[in-house]
Amino acid sequence: MLGITILGSNSAVPSFGRHPTAQIITFRDQLFLIDCGEGAQMQMNQYKIRKNRINHIFISHLHGDHYFGLIGLLSSMNLLGREQPIHIYAPAPLQPLLELQCKISGGPLGFTLHFYPLTKAEKIVDDKHVEVHCFPTKHSIECWGFLFKEKKTNRRINNNSIALKDIPLEFYKYLQQGDDYTKEDGAVIPNHTVTIEGTSPQSYAFCADTLYDEELLSHITQVNLLYHEATYLDEMHDKAAGRFHSTTKQAATIAQKAQAKRLLIGHFSSKYEKLDAFLEEAQTIFPNTSLALEGITYRM
Amino acid sequence: MLGITILGSNSAVPSFGRHPTAQIITFRDQLFLIDCGEGAQMQMNQYKIRKNRINHIFISHLHGDHYFGLIGLLSSMNLLGREQPIHIYAPAPLQPLLELQCKISGGPLGFTLHFYPLTKAEKIVDDKHVEVHCFPTKHSIECWGFLFKEKKTNRRINNNSIALKDIPLEFYKYLQQGDDYTKEDGAVIPNHTVTIEGTSPQSYAFCADTLYDEELLSHITQVNLLYHEATYLDEMHDKAAGRFHSTTKQAATIAQKAQAKRLLIGHFSSKYEKLDAFLEEAQTIFPNTSLALEGITYRM
Repeated sequence: MLGITILGSNSAVPSFGRHPTAQIITFRDQLFLIDCGEGAQMQMNQYKIRKNRINHIFISHLHGDHYFGLIGLLSSMNLLGREQPIHIYAPAPLQPLLELQCKISGGPLGFTLHFYPLTKAEKIVDDKHVEVHCFPTKHSIECWGFLFKEKKTNRRINNNSIALKDIPLEFYKYLQQGDDYTKEDGAVIPNHTVTIEGTSPQSYAFCADTLYDEELLSHITQVNLLYHEATYLDEMHDKAAGRFHSTTKQAATIAQKAQAKRLLIGHFSSKYEKLDAFLEEAQTIFPNTSLALEGITYRM
Repeated sequence: MLGITILGSNSAVPSFGRHPTAQIITFRDQLFLIDCGEGAQMQMNQYKIRKNRINHIFISHLHGDHYFGLIGLLSSMNLLGREQPIHIYAPAPLQPLLELQCKISGGPLGFTLHFYPLTKAEKIVDDKHVEVHCFPTKHSIECWGFLFKEKKTNRRINNNSIALKDIPLEFYKYLQQGDDYTKEDGAVIPNHTVTIEGTSPQSYAFCADTLYDEELLSHITQVNLLYHEATYLDEMHDKAAGRFHSTTKQAATIAQKAQAKRLLIGHFSSKYEKLDAFLEEAQTIFPNTSLALEGITYRM
């Protein structure tokens, strides 16, 4: 099961108590961090996020509101005695900056930092239970979205099946993986008679900062939860385009065309104090839309 | 009149809602910023600090909890349309880092950034009404304290003086500066007969991160308000020394020996949730001690 916890949902300049972009993706006992705006580590403290469970950090692009909190987070992990490595996936110019920051601020970290520069749309993490892909978005500088896909889940033992009595407990893990069972007399118990389908694999796409761009669709089609930026209301679509951002209705149109199950909008411009209109506008096109609100965990 | 507003009073890692070091020094209509830990710009929002009045920023040293918020603040000033220059006084290695951060995060700032590397104890700002001096402190890396000294204040017109009737209003500004008045017949009206002393010039010393160090005394003697770090309680004095920090009682002893009028202690270790004991211990040696609490302005 995937859960998305919003740590920051504002664009550019912090305002009205809203923080710059950062999201925690919870998958089983692992946490993944997408973007790390200033103050992300304080937000983790506030919302009781266990930082030591974060092993993979994804930075969409190098505008400050998406990464100025990264060095502070790494520094605090270090001061708290972290030893396990961190894997960072980000545009290449971040690497020499992190190295310089570590060098002048008290020496190397006590843990290994593996840096993977993003170069093309591809699978960047292949974990036991989840895989992560990156894909380019259209912004004023190099910018990347991320797709989290749960792998095929195990079948579940059907405890109502009478045939189970002939199968030893030790074989159940193979049943969960789909194997048939062959008895000593050579008779086969087909898997489907003793198991049922596992839960459907879930998926989450984070579309970073982007213009309205239908080229995104091939990467995010039929995603369970789609995060798409909506920096401005619809009336500001010219300004949005000029700044390589999207509006509420553009985000909702992408969700609709991608046949996403649910849409989350965020990256609200600092000029807006109230957000009601963001939700109303997006829902005229894509009803199953939610606002990305700080401290809320959106589960699938 | 000087006012010191605390934006952050914690050391190393943010904890218990406390932020890393940052202080606003208010002097007449000017704001000065000392240190800029992560989240300082959000704290300025919360406490209604007018960022555009900050022209001078002083960074004591390059441990992250004293400067990781600087690039975010500069970036926000830029996005908000700032044009007037900023003057930064800091250890030299900060300059190339700021340049690299600006370069990879969207290009140069829209205002000029004057950088002054700190090299020795000297006067670094000589303003109309205030001067600022830096002095070295003893920490694990290059580290600087700052002394703010109000210049001699103007004398005030004594409206009860009968001699005033012979002096034209246009001359009052010279009276305030201490001049005598010579009448047309050559008779002199001595300044002290028509004016009274102005308010006493105030001073504030920020002692950054430091070991207990009596060499500080020559720089801070008889200061009106002394900020001295007290990272640990007295029982931790060995740990304090090992980490180039001070305890409550060491801070209070420095205040006493410097004949400071008032002491402010801060930079509390992340291990302490409650701070009562910090105040109690310091007051056993220097009664006029206050805790540096976030959002509070200490006035002189």
